[in-house]
Amino acid sequence: MDKILRINMGSEGGPKVTEEARGAYEGMGGRTLTSAIVSGEVPPLCHPLGEDNKLIIAPGLLSGTIASTSGRISVGCKSPLTGGIKEANSGGQASQVLARLGYGAIVLEGKPKDDNLYKIFINNDGVKISPDNSLKMLGNYDLVEKMKEEYGDKIACISIGPAGEMKLSAATVAFTDMELRPTRHAGRGGVGAVMGSKGVKVIVLDDTGMKMRAPKDPEKFREANKIFTEGLKKHPVTGEALPAYGTGVLTNVINEAGAYPTNNFKWGRFDNCSAISGEAEAEIEESRGGFTTHGCHRGCVIQCSGIYMDKDGQYLTKQPEYETVWAHGGNCGIDDLDAIAMMDRLDDDYGLDTIEMGATIGVAMEAGVAEFGDADAAINLIHEVGKGTPLGRILGNGAAVTGKVFGVERVPVVKGQAMPAYDPRAIQGIGVTYATSTMGADHTAGYAIATNILKVGGYVDPLKPEGQIELSRNLQIATAAIDSTGMCLFIAFPVLDQPETFQALIDMLNAFYGLNMTADDVTELGKKVLKMERDFNADAGFTAKHDRLPDFFMKEAFPPHNVTFQVKDEDLDRVFDW
Amino acid sequence: MDKILRINMGSEGGPKVTEEARGAYEGMGGRTLTSAIVSGEVPPLCHPLGEDNKLIIAPGLLSGTIASTSGRISVGCKSPLTGGIKEANSGGQASQVLARLGYGAIVLEGKPKDDNLYKIFINNDGVKISPDNSLKMLGNYDLVEKMKEEYGDKIACISIGPAGEMKLSAATVAFTDMELRPTRHAGRGGVGAVMGSKGVKVIVLDDTGMKMRAPKDPEKFREANKIFTEGLKKHPVTGEALPAYGTGVLTNVINEAGAYPTNNFKWGRFDNCSAISGEAEAEIEESRGGFTTHGCHRGCVIQCSGIYMDKDGQYLTKQPEYETVWAHGGNCGIDDLDAIAMMDRLDDDYGLDTIEMGATIGVAMEAGVAEFGDADAAINLIHEVGKGTPLGRILGNGAAVTGKVFGVERVPVVKGQAMPAYDPRAIQGIGVTYATSTMGADHTAGYAIATNILKVGGYVDPLKPEGQIELSRNLQIATAAIDSTGMCLFIAFPVLDQPETFQALIDMLNAFYGLNMTADDVTELGKKVLKMERDFNADAGFTAKHDRLPDFFMKEAFPPHNVTFQVKDEDLDRVFDW
Repeated sequence: MDKILRINMGSEGGPKVTEEARGAYEGMGGRTLTSAIVSGEVPPLCHPLGEDNKLIIAPGLLSGTIASTSGRISVGCKSPLTGGIKEANSGGQASQVLARLGYGAIVLEGKPKDDNLYKIFINNDGVKISPDNSLKMLGNYDLVEKMKEEYGDKIACISIGPAGEMKLSAATVAFTDMELRPTRHAGRGGVGAVMGSKGVKVIVLDDTGMKMRAPKDPEKFREANKIFTEGLKKHPVTGEALPAYGTGVLTNVINEAGAYPTNNFKWGRFDNCSAISGEAEAEIEESRGGFTTHGCHRGCVIQCSGIYMDKDGQYLTKQPEYETVWAHGGNCGIDDLDAIAMMDRLDDDYGLDTIEMGATIGVAMEAGVAEFGDADAAINLIHEVGKGTPLGRILGNGAAVTGKVFGVERVPVVKGQAMPAYDPRAIQGIGVTYATSTMGADHTAGYAIATNILKVGGYVDPLKPEGQIELSRNLQIATAAIDSTGMCLFIAFPVLDQPETFQALIDMLNAFYGLNMTADDVTELGKKVLKMERDFNADAGFTAKHDRLPDFFMKEAFPPHNVTFQVKDEDLDRVFDW
Repeated sequence: MDKILRINMGSEGGPKVTEEARGAYEGMGGRTLTSAIVSGEVPPLCHPLGEDNKLIIAPGLLSGTIASTSGRISVGCKSPLTGGIKEANSGGQASQVLARLGYGAIVLEGKPKDDNLYKIFINNDGVKISPDNSLKMLGNYDLVEKMKEEYGDKIACISIGPAGEMKLSAATVAFTDMELRPTRHAGRGGVGAVMGSKGVKVIVLDDTGMKMRAPKDPEKFREANKIFTEGLKKHPVTGEALPAYGTGVLTNVINEAGAYPTNNFKWGRFDNCSAISGEAEAEIEESRGGFTTHGCHRGCVIQCSGIYMDKDGQYLTKQPEYETVWAHGGNCGIDDLDAIAMMDRLDDDYGLDTIEMGATIGVAMEAGVAEFGDADAAINLIHEVGKGTPLGRILGNGAAVTGKVFGVERVPVVKGQAMPAYDPRAIQGIGVTYATSTMGADHTAGYAIATNILKVGGYVDPLKPEGQIELSRNLQIATAAIDSTGMCLFIAFPVLDQPETFQALIDMLNAFYGLNMTADDVTELGKKVLKMERDFNADAGFTAKHDRLPDFFMKEAFPPHNVTFQVKDEDLDRVFDW
């Protein structure tokens, strides 16, 4: 983790590899590191697909250690979707493997001078880069199979599907899971398009012969990790609900709260919601020999995922997340879990953000491109993207472009990025996060659902504007810090509710790095990250006017609560005044 | 001209007409009036296609009078293309007719509650609005024929083609010329999409029984008009070059200057430029029984237009403008004037901005959608737009959207609007205008070509950054004032070179309105308009970072001069510091 691996894809004579010491980036991991490199090295007004943009892939501070649930990885760049800074976060195996290989980050730079598509292989012996045009336009699943044939099954892959090669703004970077399936994605903001613009199809990692990263104080580290792990296990969200039903446990909860955006954010309850709930998902998984409880990476103790089999009992995809099921389900009026799982599979294979794609199909349905509720049509639209037809390219560039191209007024985006599965009128705290996050509309940037709905970390009435600014602010700060550790964001539930679990996280960081951080230092880290990101966005042309929801959220009352977004503009402008 | 006609298309029970006194808008015409209404009444963050946007159609201060060349009309709104304020300016008959009917402006407001398409008929007896779905998706030419059958041939039409109905961001508002052909367009910024969003297909004007507008001091007015007209006639640009060859006279000039953007702004000289020059145009027109000299409206003494016949001697289109010939010609590597004229005709018929469309096809060619130089393919692409296919909708939304959808990096736009026919590297003054104009890239907003190339109003070396800020600033101020008078912008050539012609213009305004304006007052008016527009744009989220050219103009040296855009950012930020 003490090296930065830079690969300049635009060098004369072909890609050039440089390994350097961390230097100014000492002590940074995950989102702190990706945002620091973007802030420090990428011109804010550069073209996101041009030679000046950089794609940074960085494990978290605790990745590659025995710390439980520490396998999240950050992918950063200037976003082709928003035009601002981007950190997209993923699970999968790569974070642990990359950290154990000793790399604090991979930085893809420059722009290839030819049309070759490259693969990069990294192991104990170093870095090999070779053109391999046989990989062109392969889906992520086929690609990974080829890599297994070539490099064996002790690898982890970081790859793009056809969407990334086509430089579509909804393209993801895929990460393989424990079964070497490309089911984990840095989904948001078009990071896959930037990888595509660098001409890199796949980075194959093999950490054979490498060891777990060693803490400065192994004893204290082990002890803190034990307390931390117990904290995760004893909290009702991370210890019970998420393992049993995955994130899909939210479907009935959010629907009951009247905050489940249905038919492109028209109303807040989806009639046949129970058919696509986490409970229904678990039942199908169990009945077909899948798994209801499964981790996205080794060392995860929450195990919120699962394995979804098709009707013949064959593997189809990992358990689709709550937001994916919403995006392709209720938001499109679709109540067929098998169809939704198929769309999840296709998104993973083509390398597309499930949230952006579902929101986009909702907008396309509003435009009359397909009927709400027509699952076959929705599946076909995703195939259009994979094929790269003009219609597919429109959709693959996300909801904002699709709305513009089809002249649709009701387009649920902020800073060009589609809103996820929580209506900001019925859960006003998440509206503040959508509006003000440096990332564009993003529930993970400050997950107000926790306090507005789940009553974790206290309670703030979701239907009223009062208290939402402070709630979102504190969550955004905490999230920026957590996203730097490599820890899964779900640790926030126990961390918010259980002081000893929060202390254990700090103790782990201190024991590993030989530091003396306090809770205040963690807050300061979060603020520092947000400030860097805000400054980059300001230099890219963002102002307070971009920290707003589309006007229809202030004008259309949202059933069943018939409420509009009530937080005032001047209050939104206070989120970052701390 | 003392009434404002407001038509609320969203009223309960159908469109509602209100006539009101000018009130706060007293003494305003053309761009001053459209920008004042947009600034004062349109929420800057509203959706451009939503109920809160307004479409304002306003004759100039001297329109409807005997003043020569005073028939320009302004169309204003929040632009669907740029997201900022927009004034698009057109010739044609409507300005004179609307002014004589007594209207200072027509303001289309609200959003229809049904899917009907409306026609509006305005004459001496008042305003009649009726749904007419038989007009749906008619091209402008067929539409005008239908209106002639219905209302006779003493009318002037303001209309949209299929592009406006589809709410495409390159859609125009068309104005009929003296022969009742829809050849004059408020082209830029998607004003036609806003008219489409209001559900209005056509506004038919009939000024039968109405008189010329009477000046306060008829004697002085007549005298000033005489001097002014003589000024236009004796200047070499407005008296000789433009009448003889139209704006196409620029083709050889700009090509010779190495500033003719070829193959999507790759280099500055087009090999077979002479085949599409104004001289070639005139030769074809003469040989086929067309006209080389023709006005776009009654009372024009410059007569820069013409009539272009096809190979069989049948009317095809009006003489395509320099920028149109460039956009569909050199910018796409096409040297076939008949093909270019056909594209001009199709753009007029579908209701599309020729500059935006040509630039867009150039970007599409860069993306590999068609080959540079393939005229048939280019014509087919315009038909795609007319048909509203997914590909057509992409293209019909302009160069920025097309670049985004196809992942193209070299996209020549500012604030989302395509650059016209002058490369900002080889003519750096126009680069300052492109970058800083409130309108997005727009040559008419501050036509630095005059001084950089034509040596009108002095000379500033086009290849160097020195003096360009002041040049563009002064031209932008003067233009904002001229755009408010109803005068054709080409009067700027004699006005810049001949003090007595400038004075005659001021004398006409004073004599008509009973004022005592000085040259300084004209400057103050221009500044006032620009300030309103800048303030609106700031409230819509624009900052200094949006007053920039795309980065490839600073990175790619432009042959044959091999120069990049050299004006510094901090100097661009000085343009509006007066």
